[in-house]
Amino acid sequence: VERIVIVGGNAAGMSAAARAKRVNRDLDITVVESGAHVAYSICGAPFLISGELREASGLVHFTPEEFQSQRGSRVLAETEAVHLQPGLKRLEVLCRRSGRRDVLAYDRLLLATGYKPRRPRIQGLDHPLVFTLARLPDALAIRDLVDAGQVRDVLLVGGGYIGLELCEALRRRGCRVLLVEESESVLGTLDRDMSEIVARELRLNGIELALGSTVGELRKTQDAGRIAALLQPAESWSTVNLVLIDIGVEPNVELAERAGIRLGRSGAIEVTERLETSVFGVYAAGNCAEAFNLVSGRCETSCLATVASKQGRAAGDNLAGRLARFGGHVGTSILRVFGLEVGSTGLNTSQALSCGFRADAVKISAPVAAAYLPESTQVTLKVVFDRSNGRLLGAQAIGPRGVAARINVLAACLHQRQTVEEAAQLDLAYAPSFSQAWDPVHVAMHAAQRVMAGRAR
Amino acid sequence: VERIVIVGGNAAGMSAAARAKRVNRDLDITVVESGAHVAYSICGAPFLISGELREASGLVHFTPEEFQSQRGSRVLAETEAVHLQPGLKRLEVLCRRSGRRDVLAYDRLLLATGYKPRRPRIQGLDHPLVFTLARLPDALAIRDLVDAGQVRDVLLVGGGYIGLELCEALRRRGCRVLLVEESESVLGTLDRDMSEIVARELRLNGIELALGSTVGELRKTQDAGRIAALLQPAESWSTVNLVLIDIGVEPNVELAERAGIRLGRSGAIEVTERLETSVFGVYAAGNCAEAFNLVSGRCETSCLATVASKQGRAAGDNLAGRLARFGGHVGTSILRVFGLEVGSTGLNTSQALSCGFRADAVKISAPVAAAYLPESTQVTLKVVFDRSNGRLLGAQAIGPRGVAARINVLAACLHQRQTVEEAAQLDLAYAPSFSQAWDPVHVAMHAAQRVMAGRAR
Repeated sequence: VERIVIVGGNAAGMSAAARAKRVNRDLDITVVESGAHVAYSICGAPFLISGELREASGLVHFTPEEFQSQRGSRVLAETEAVHLQPGLKRLEVLCRRSGRRDVLAYDRLLLATGYKPRRPRIQGLDHPLVFTLARLPDALAIRDLVDAGQVRDVLLVGGGYIGLELCEALRRRGCRVLLVEESESVLGTLDRDMSEIVARELRLNGIELALGSTVGELRKTQDAGRIAALLQPAESWSTVNLVLIDIGVEPNVELAERAGIRLGRSGAIEVTERLETSVFGVYAAGNCAEAFNLVSGRCETSCLATVASKQGRAAGDNLAGRLARFGGHVGTSILRVFGLEVGSTGLNTSQALSCGFRADAVKISAPVAAAYLPESTQVTLKVVFDRSNGRLLGAQAIGPRGVAARINVLAACLHQRQTVEEAAQLDLAYAPSFSQAWDPVHVAMHAAQRVMAGRAR
Repeated sequence: VERIVIVGGNAAGMSAAARAKRVNRDLDITVVESGAHVAYSICGAPFLISGELREASGLVHFTPEEFQSQRGSRVLAETEAVHLQPGLKRLEVLCRRSGRRDVLAYDRLLLATGYKPRRPRIQGLDHPLVFTLARLPDALAIRDLVDAGQVRDVLLVGGGYIGLELCEALRRRGCRVLLVEESESVLGTLDRDMSEIVARELRLNGIELALGSTVGELRKTQDAGRIAALLQPAESWSTVNLVLIDIGVEPNVELAERAGIRLGRSGAIEVTERLETSVFGVYAAGNCAEAFNLVSGRCETSCLATVASKQGRAAGDNLAGRLARFGGHVGTSILRVFGLEVGSTGLNTSQALSCGFRADAVKISAPVAAAYLPESTQVTLKVVFDRSNGRLLGAQAIGPRGVAARINVLAACLHQRQTVEEAAQLDLAYAPSFSQAWDPVHVAMHAAQRVMAGRAR
């Protein structure tokens, strides 16, 4: 019987375990997870805090026991992978509950250790009112504080996807929220002009924004329920009940690094298309591994569950001895924040320029649902393309609805290296409740064609 | 100055006129339209009847005068194109208002005469309470009858897209609706099992369905506000206040046929990729012309505004002397009917089989919005593929929301002749409000992969 060990019990690890078992029932699979929960969806944490989701169990797809009985893989929860010896094909683990150390022998091993939140280098981060939001226990602790009526003022440091969704959740719970962001705009994945639409929506909904600002220090106060933050460059102190840190993530690669497994230039574990690392018998998948971006042609880190699940599934095939590849991603993401859907795929303008493309962009607004209907709203769609050959490079869309339908189509175009000309011909769904006969995607392509024609002159 | 004459003032004709003028301002363009309105959206008619849209003017993008002043093309409304002499490059027209005949000389002419509704071969069709729904005046007349309180019972013969939207509009206005459909299912573009979901929704909302039935005869009654219909095979008479005919459309090709222009096997005007007809200097676009289906590889008739607009735009380029092609369509359509979105693209199972593909299909249901959210709903997605090579051939999706996002992606896949394997890798947008990390598209592809693997054994 072949023994498979998987380190990490979330999107990538659990997809791999489920897939490998499906391909080959006879595999002996053990999943090692440092936390108490496996197979949960941290993306749902804002809904737990807003109260839309009552029970944390709603986020957990399987308990360790359920996964074992339904999917046939052993799960060791609250167990740390402390030492990997690929030469001996052994993994040393430490059970945090029992304190017991154990050695697992394997034939193939998958590293699915995910990411860890970045933390700013400031004093006072160890205060009990400071949280990152990478693990379910963080979300539960924040929810409990809010439920207990102890949170009136919140400081959110950084503004990524989960951070913005948290802003909304905390506003719904009646909190005041100050968002401090080092750069001049929220959601760095967007071009500045698009990100300003999001900033406006945040302000309209009562979020206070301090852009171009950082927190220099955190300090406890006499009131144990409050914490003071030094805002810079203003050099003013703000006292709040809760500090949330959301300044990005980095791949969790310590175990791999200590085992001599090669990291890529991005800092994540280097993998082949088949998710093999530099060391025989060891695979990596998910947010600890590099993901090839089909548009930039570069290997990147990713923090997305979509990429992790796809890599995990392909790794599961390979663990089970079947050939499968992860074909790469195009960087698609979406979020809903207050009344807006915000989506993007591919490269934004500055990313495209820095990758050496002759990038140009057009921005249009067009109706989602025919203009004559009372429910008609507009979507703003920005499309980045290479003006030397018309190749599509990326897209960003914002609007009250209809964003996914456009971003998903453009993501499919990016996978296929399509041009503006080709995308203009797409036969997209039209009925008055959904668009006009020319979909916003077509309107944007026509605008890009005019730019291309103008440049050609 | 080059003289362009365009016959037909709707989707294709007006797109062509606007485009040609944009490319070359110096063109002398005349649009000949038999109706009083140009550039209107008949797809919006159900909303006019439901009362959601108050003014018919909302459906009309331009009056003839506005089009002339804003887009620089002359519009002759209420003018019939009676005789085309391509050898002489002349078109004889008759103004219905003045009764005057005129001859327009042209350098290039575009036929954009659209479709006409099919009519059953039965007695009594000339009764004033019988309507088709292809022209704005029909919609206005129906609306006026409903507004006047004269419509309690409606008989709808046939159930296409506009027919089903009309069912909903008339229910909203308090009418009783009986839908009589010759085949055993509504919406023939769908596979039978998918169409049954639509039929259930119609019944749930109080529409009475008589499938496998036809109307054998219509007869006037003593009450001028009522008309009797003989239903077959039941051989029972039903008396209603309004009869709507929606049994399909056919291309309007009389003018072309009389001028010796070649028709294709579909019955529509045969055109090249550049929209040229068999006769020099004469182009055709829109629902009177054939449209190449990229999946079936066949030239078809189309009744969709999306195809008409794209052909019209490409024709406009060619009329203005620029090279442009219509690259073909994949048969994408969508509608909202009561609480469901219903979309399809490509071929259904029986179409795929009749085209000679080794067609197989999978049907899945998957959440749109994470299952843990209260607003989570399911979309049912059926995907047709060729089991010999995995090529995608078509898709049908039904659900309360999220249908367009999936159908549009799959339409883009069909344009690119993608396989199940390739579509499974697509990097689609995920956030809890929109899907699960595996989008319904991925779930369907995984199901198809399992079918393929099973067949290979």
